Amino acid sequence: MRSAIRLRPVGVVHSRFKEPADLPPPAFAPPRFFEHAIGEIEVFPEFAEALDDIEGFSHIIVLFHFHRSGSPKLKAVPPGQSRPRGIFSTRSPHRPNPLGLSVLKLLGRDGRVLEVSGLDIVDGTPVLDIKPYTSRDRKSRIRTGWLQKRGRPAR
Amino acid sequence: MRSAIRLRPVGVVHSRFKEPADLPPPAFAPPRFFEHAIGEIEVFPEFAEALDDIEGFSHIIVLFHFHRSGSPKLKAVPPGQSRPRGIFSTRSPHRPNPLGLSVLKLLGRDGRVLEVSGLDIVDGTPVLDIKPYTSRDRKSRIRTGWLQKRGRPAR
Repeated sequence: MRSAIRLRPVGVVHSRFKEPADLPPPAFAPPRFFEHAIGEIEVFPEFAEALDDIEGFSHIIVLFHFHRSGSPKLKAVPPGQSRPRGIFSTRSPHRPNPLGLSVLKLLGRDGRVLEVSGLDIVDGTPVLDIKPYTSRDRKSRIRTGWLQKRGRPAR
Repeated sequence: MRSAIRLRPVGVVHSRFKEPADLPPPAFAPPRFFEHAIGEIEVFPEFAEALDDIEGFSHIIVLFHFHRSGSPKLKAVPPGQSRPRGIFSTRSPHRPNPLGLSVLKLLGRDGRVLEVSGLDIVDGTPVLDIKPYTSRDRKSRIRTGWLQKRGRPAR
C-alpha cells in the first residue's frame, strides 16, 4: 500500500509560457485570459494509438508532472493571500506528489498532436495521462472555500 | 523530459467496493448510484497538515493509483461497447500510467479522514493527491464523443 509508483511521460506540452514565471496565477489572470491561451499536447509515437476517438470530446483532462516545482510543502501561502493554506486545498505545484491537472478545451487533433485552449501549463512539461472530460466531472452548486473569500470571484 | 517519475501514496481509500468486480461501470450503474456511495479518504499522519482549509470546498478531486488494473493497453472495448476505443478517450484503468481521477463530494472532515460521497474507487486504493474542485474545472456545453452515442445519456 505504501510502495512507490513509477510513471513515465506519454507526451509533452508545447506552450507559449516558457517559464513558470510567465504563467500568471489563474486567480490573477485577466478575465478570459486562459481561454485565449492556445497550445499543443504532443503524444509520443508509441502512445499515438491511445488518442483514437478523442476528437469527439470537447474537453480533456490532462495530468502532468510539475517538473519545475522544486521542493514539496504541506502548507503554502497562495498568491495574493496573507496566510498559509493546506496544500491539498490549493492547486499549488509544491505538492507531496508533483501531479498537475488541467481541464483543457480540445480544438482539434492532427495525428498525435492535440490543439488545445485554456492552456495554463509551462512549455516542456511532461504529460502523464489524458482523459476525456465527462458529465460526471461537472459538478453544480459548488463551494470553493477560501477562494470564494477573496475580492475576486472564485475561478 | 522522458525520465521516470516516482510517486508515493499520501493516503488510502476506504470503500464498500472491496474488489474491482464490485464496482459497476459508471455508465451502467443505476441512476444516482454513486451519489449514495459513501466512504472515506484517509490521509497518512505525515500529510495530515496538508488537509487544512479543505473543509470549505464542496467537492475534491482525488488522484489515485489504479493498483489492481493489470497490464496497460492502448485500446480497449469499454463496457457495453462493441468496438475498441483509444485508452485516452476512456476512463479505463488499463492506462500507460495507472492514474485514476474522481471528483467526490466532500461531506466532512474528521482530522486526517475525509468523508466523501460519489465514491467509485476500490477499497485499499493508494491515494496520490487531493485537489480542491474549483469553478475552472466546471465546463459547460460539453460534448462527450462516443459516450453520447450510447443508449443512455453520457455520465
